Amino acid sequence: MVRPATPEDAELVAAMLHDFNSEFGDPTPGTEVLTRRVSAFIESGEMTYLLGGEGPEGFAQVSFKPSVWSDEPVGYLEELYVRPARRGQGIGRSIMAAVMALARERGAAGMEVVTGESDTAARGLYESFGFENEIEGEENSRALFYELNF
Amino acid sequence: MVRPATPEDAELVAAMLHDFNSEFGDPTPGTEVLTRRVSAFIESGEMTYLLGGEGPEGFAQVSFKPSVWSDEPVGYLEELYVRPARRGQGIGRSIMAAVMALARERGAAGMEVVTGESDTAARGLYESFGFENEIEGEENSRALFYELNF
Repeated sequence: MVRPATPEDAELVAAMLHDFNSEFGDPTPGTEVLTRRVSAFIESGEMTYLLGGEGPEGFAQVSFKPSVWSDEPVGYLEELYVRPARRGQGIGRSIMAAVMALARERGAAGMEVVTGESDTAARGLYESFGFENEIEGEENSRALFYELNF
Repeated sequence: MVRPATPEDAELVAAMLHDFNSEFGDPTPGTEVLTRRVSAFIESGEMTYLLGGEGPEGFAQVSFKPSVWSDEPVGYLEELYVRPARRGQGIGRSIMAAVMALARERGAAGMEVVTGESDTAARGLYESFGFENEIEGEENSRALFYELNF
């Protein structure tokens, strides 16, 4: 049901990335540019894309980065998307299960993800897999993600 | 006042990383293991450490990662620390200014950082440099950072 994407899937993944950002009013460079980047990332192994559902109907983008706190890398769930018409049918959950299996297979020390406070569906999904929104070493202080675009 | 660390600075950086986590009750593998990792990261270029103040009195750990949304990498401020006795004297701000200069020098598309909701000093510092705690494409929804340790 969930499989890793090959370079041949780059266009499909790019189309979903484009739809993802368009849905949330985020800028997107368009499917042609995204296809080139996704294809390069799959070839180099810098990103892993996991495809869920027939079609496919959704995907996850996962990377692994070195950490000073562990000899093992830390996994980062960069994107998780399910086509709007197919939400609420367990596709996101099956992709997440595959993400966790991939992270364990790679010997990762942990996993990280950023999501919106108002996205209760995503937050509930991550929390059901054991993710916590708490800064390490402090009690009851939420971990906030800040960014700046140049 | 702020300079990039060389492999010879690895032990100094490791001592501050160790003190950082100890202060917040976070686990630390100890200075010997940290020195080995920091040294390897500086040699490989996977992480950049910027040292601030004499001594030094603080440091930043910065990495750059590929992004599907830009041809340029995105900078990630992994750690920012100033020795307790030297806080409130502008050392963190001078290190942050050097972090921003480094990111622009590397042609980064942006910068990211995670901090605790209760750490108002850090939040104020990041906000003064233009960082925003808002999920992209949505209005008034804060971006929350979740993690899971295996």
